[in-house]
Amino acid sequence: MQPHAAVPHSSAAGRSLYAEAVAHARRGAVLSSVEALLGWDEQVLLPTAAGPHRAEQVAAVAAVVHGSRTDPAQGERLEELSRLTADGGDWTTDEQATVHLLLRDHRKHVRLPARLVAEIAGACIDGQQAWAEARRTSDWSLLAPSLKRIFALKREQAACQNPDLDPYDALLDDYEPGARAGEVAGLFDRLRPKIVALVRACDSSPSRPDDGILHHHVPRDVQDRFVRDVAGRIGYDFTRGRLDTSTHPFCSTTGPHDCRLTTRWDEQFLPTALFGVLHEAGHGLYEQGLPPESFGLPGGEATSLGIHESQSRLWENLVGRSLPFWEWCLPHARTAFPGVFAASSPEIVQRALLAVQPSLIRVEADEVTYNLHVMIRFDLERSLVRGDLSVADLPAAWDERYERDFGLRPPTPTEGVLQDIHWSAGLIGYFPTYTLGNVFAAQLMAAAERDLPSLAEDIAAGRFASLLEWLRLRVHRHGRLRDSGALVVEATGMPVSEQWLLESLWRRYGPAHGLAASLAPG
Amino acid sequence: MQPHAAVPHSSAAGRSLYAEAVAHARRGAVLSSVEALLGWDEQVLLPTAAGPHRAEQVAAVAAVVHGSRTDPAQGERLEELSRLTADGGDWTTDEQATVHLLLRDHRKHVRLPARLVAEIAGACIDGQQAWAEARRTSDWSLLAPSLKRIFALKREQAACQNPDLDPYDALLDDYEPGARAGEVAGLFDRLRPKIVALVRACDSSPSRPDDGILHHHVPRDVQDRFVRDVAGRIGYDFTRGRLDTSTHPFCSTTGPHDCRLTTRWDEQFLPTALFGVLHEAGHGLYEQGLPPESFGLPGGEATSLGIHESQSRLWENLVGRSLPFWEWCLPHARTAFPGVFAASSPEIVQRALLAVQPSLIRVEADEVTYNLHVMIRFDLERSLVRGDLSVADLPAAWDERYERDFGLRPPTPTEGVLQDIHWSAGLIGYFPTYTLGNVFAAQLMAAAERDLPSLAEDIAAGRFASLLEWLRLRVHRHGRLRDSGALVVEATGMPVSEQWLLESLWRRYGPAHGLAASLAPG
Repeated sequence: MQPHAAVPHSSAAGRSLYAEAVAHARRGAVLSSVEALLGWDEQVLLPTAAGPHRAEQVAAVAAVVHGSRTDPAQGERLEELSRLTADGGDWTTDEQATVHLLLRDHRKHVRLPARLVAEIAGACIDGQQAWAEARRTSDWSLLAPSLKRIFALKREQAACQNPDLDPYDALLDDYEPGARAGEVAGLFDRLRPKIVALVRACDSSPSRPDDGILHHHVPRDVQDRFVRDVAGRIGYDFTRGRLDTSTHPFCSTTGPHDCRLTTRWDEQFLPTALFGVLHEAGHGLYEQGLPPESFGLPGGEATSLGIHESQSRLWENLVGRSLPFWEWCLPHARTAFPGVFAASSPEIVQRALLAVQPSLIRVEADEVTYNLHVMIRFDLERSLVRGDLSVADLPAAWDERYERDFGLRPPTPTEGVLQDIHWSAGLIGYFPTYTLGNVFAAQLMAAAERDLPSLAEDIAAGRFASLLEWLRLRVHRHGRLRDSGALVVEATGMPVSEQWLLESLWRRYGPAHGLAASLAPG
Repeated sequence: MQPHAAVPHSSAAGRSLYAEAVAHARRGAVLSSVEALLGWDEQVLLPTAAGPHRAEQVAAVAAVVHGSRTDPAQGERLEELSRLTADGGDWTTDEQATVHLLLRDHRKHVRLPARLVAEIAGACIDGQQAWAEARRTSDWSLLAPSLKRIFALKREQAACQNPDLDPYDALLDDYEPGARAGEVAGLFDRLRPKIVALVRACDSSPSRPDDGILHHHVPRDVQDRFVRDVAGRIGYDFTRGRLDTSTHPFCSTTGPHDCRLTTRWDEQFLPTALFGVLHEAGHGLYEQGLPPESFGLPGGEATSLGIHESQSRLWENLVGRSLPFWEWCLPHARTAFPGVFAASSPEIVQRALLAVQPSLIRVEADEVTYNLHVMIRFDLERSLVRGDLSVADLPAAWDERYERDFGLRPPTPTEGVLQDIHWSAGLIGYFPTYTLGNVFAAQLMAAAERDLPSLAEDIAAGRFASLLEWLRLRVHRHGRLRDSGALVVEATGMPVSEQWLLESLWRRYGPAHGLAASLAPG
């Protein structure tokens, strides 16, 4: 008897079924990556008159993708594989997780009636148009009816897709699989007072950073060369990606070897492009670190928005706003921009990048106050989904929270409740992932510093490979075979905690504002 | 009895069937336009490592498009509509033609076995790779086996798709619907000796144009602004298109309001970009002139490659190499490129653009000799398809024809039979459309000059709208509801003839080479 004949027949059939399920998932992902390219092109290149046709193209491809995702034959395969892999046998844990996640996705898609998908899509298109007009005219009443409808439809979606979960949890699960609002709220409730304390201490400090040295004219093409060099230096692979220009910077993956970054430019203020590119390149390094051979499978996909944001924030803030980074970067910046940083030191540039300034607008917020903006939105959207808060009462609730957390009151709805597109676009349960990203980033960085004693030295010498390699091994290569919580716990060997973010912020922002180390929370 | 009740029931049912067929065709065209975007992006932007995934994306969308094109339900609709519309009734001739052409396309697609489609696709991918390597090493034997296979498969395609036609005619029909090789050969046979005579007269003239004044350093960004201005001035609408950079300039339509041009740049030689853009913008003006409301239907599609090329050549050569054009353009060029054309006149610049130089390479050929390159390829590919010439004997036949028509012998296959990618890419029956384009362009321009007595004056004043409007009305707006021959006859009121091309060439190239008008053919 040959060794191979010892494999039972059922296993060979299971293997074949698994191969079919994988091939089906990959085909769907290839088509979905076409949708991603349509979206990328729309943001970056599309001629102004071509918008309506692009919407038709997206709808046509989306319909094909939806057909693939809800294919009953794939559902049967996955149900059968779920039974076959349930008790382990010769299936690896990654294969078990793959089947589990593909089946979970399949069920989620199948549970969503086509009618509801179309209604949500329509409501969100209307919502975004209403939002743009409401924002332009600062007239909340133009958005309110759309938003009411969107929240109602998203509650319906939650009930269809995940009837076992609390509605907000079901929505959050789309962006941060496995996360539950109760735990997130606990984390945020521990974080908030300590961030508020840091903000107040910074804000009332007589010694505040001055970012004057960052305001210099640097021509766009000169900035372009510089930021490409920096992105390449931290490890972003331009043979597997691009850098282009768009109004709102983003990172989009259109294939396993095609992850594209965009940025915007301010010729008077270098940090706009430099930190925009560090942020998007952080997203890009994660995407480029996912195993390409698992493209289209859970093992080849990002696990959550929170982990994605942790990667972008890590490079943007924990590397880019650190002293070692500027020890390496400043001489390069001096060469690239003759005369601009002549009288600066790494310490001076880093400090200029650490100004804390409470303000009304999230997207312009500094690293510290940003989290307060996020937590306000998280609380408000939870109340809206629960029904504790009505859309009609949202503007007043918004203004009240800004008064309480920031001591600032939006003078108009455009500078308040109308500033973000998310809710009008149906992105409910999305906001908390920004601060989860900051929390994860700080914890991952703390663990990397622990594991790599020469990390600061490496960064100061422009050697970013040790950090990237650590992230590749601990985070990127797992795809979404672990959810964000498990991933962070396993990568760092520590329970998820806000402590590392608070430490990181105090360690950098405290001295920059002349605060005594003794003020930092224990 | 109400008037509306007089419409027989069958007509209402027919109308509804027609609407369904149209909607189906449009859905297929939307998906096909996604394929076009994938191709455009591949040529212009794709990161180097992303090629294999792009091939998967194209294959996935192509499979969906193929499914739509061969959908039996659409076939049944079209067969029924073909019967319903056959005897006119309340169907317009455009509707009849639409049904006829949609059905013809459907049958062509259905007749092609999926196995053959896949084999041709595979053979052409291999062929192009073999061509690149053969060309690099100037080793014909590396390409010969692939080419033999491609010609065999294309003959098989011809027999499947159009069993009633001669095989070469069937292939030609894909690019130039309605054209037949016998007629094309007749036209070319009348054209060839007269072009050869003009080339010899120019080549042996003691007074030949000198293009020295065109060789100046002009930075790329300065050229970029200038050529965009020119493209916009002749009528290309940048709200419905773009201009980008690629190795091989092309024009690609990715939607009814999205027709994109590319060019390449030579900082030492302005005509590379300027005439490249005039050529591609000519294609673009045609695409932008197709009725957008007929997108996806024959009424909204280009009728043939020959007509397409007629539009690009008309703007590139018949406008761009004319004296009136330079009367308008030169002052603008002087402003855009300070110092470059200081000592020139419109006559001097135009003459510099009219140098005739027999050479071995088609893509570098001047407007006159270009047609000789095309006619050689047409004769050779016809012989190959007929089987009169074997792939093994092709290099010798190629060299012999160059010797005969040009008095030049390629020193290596790379400068001879290996120079073009077309055959290796399965494009057989494509070459003659280049010269058909020149013939159509000259005849259309002659008719436009006849119909618009102030055309030269308009062009000299930078008023291109009269010519564009003439082309819109006579050519663009018909889509492919008329084939190229019928379109040219109807647009010009004259039978298709080579006479206009010969006249146009002699009128410009004769004086530029100091040839007596009496030498021109009657």
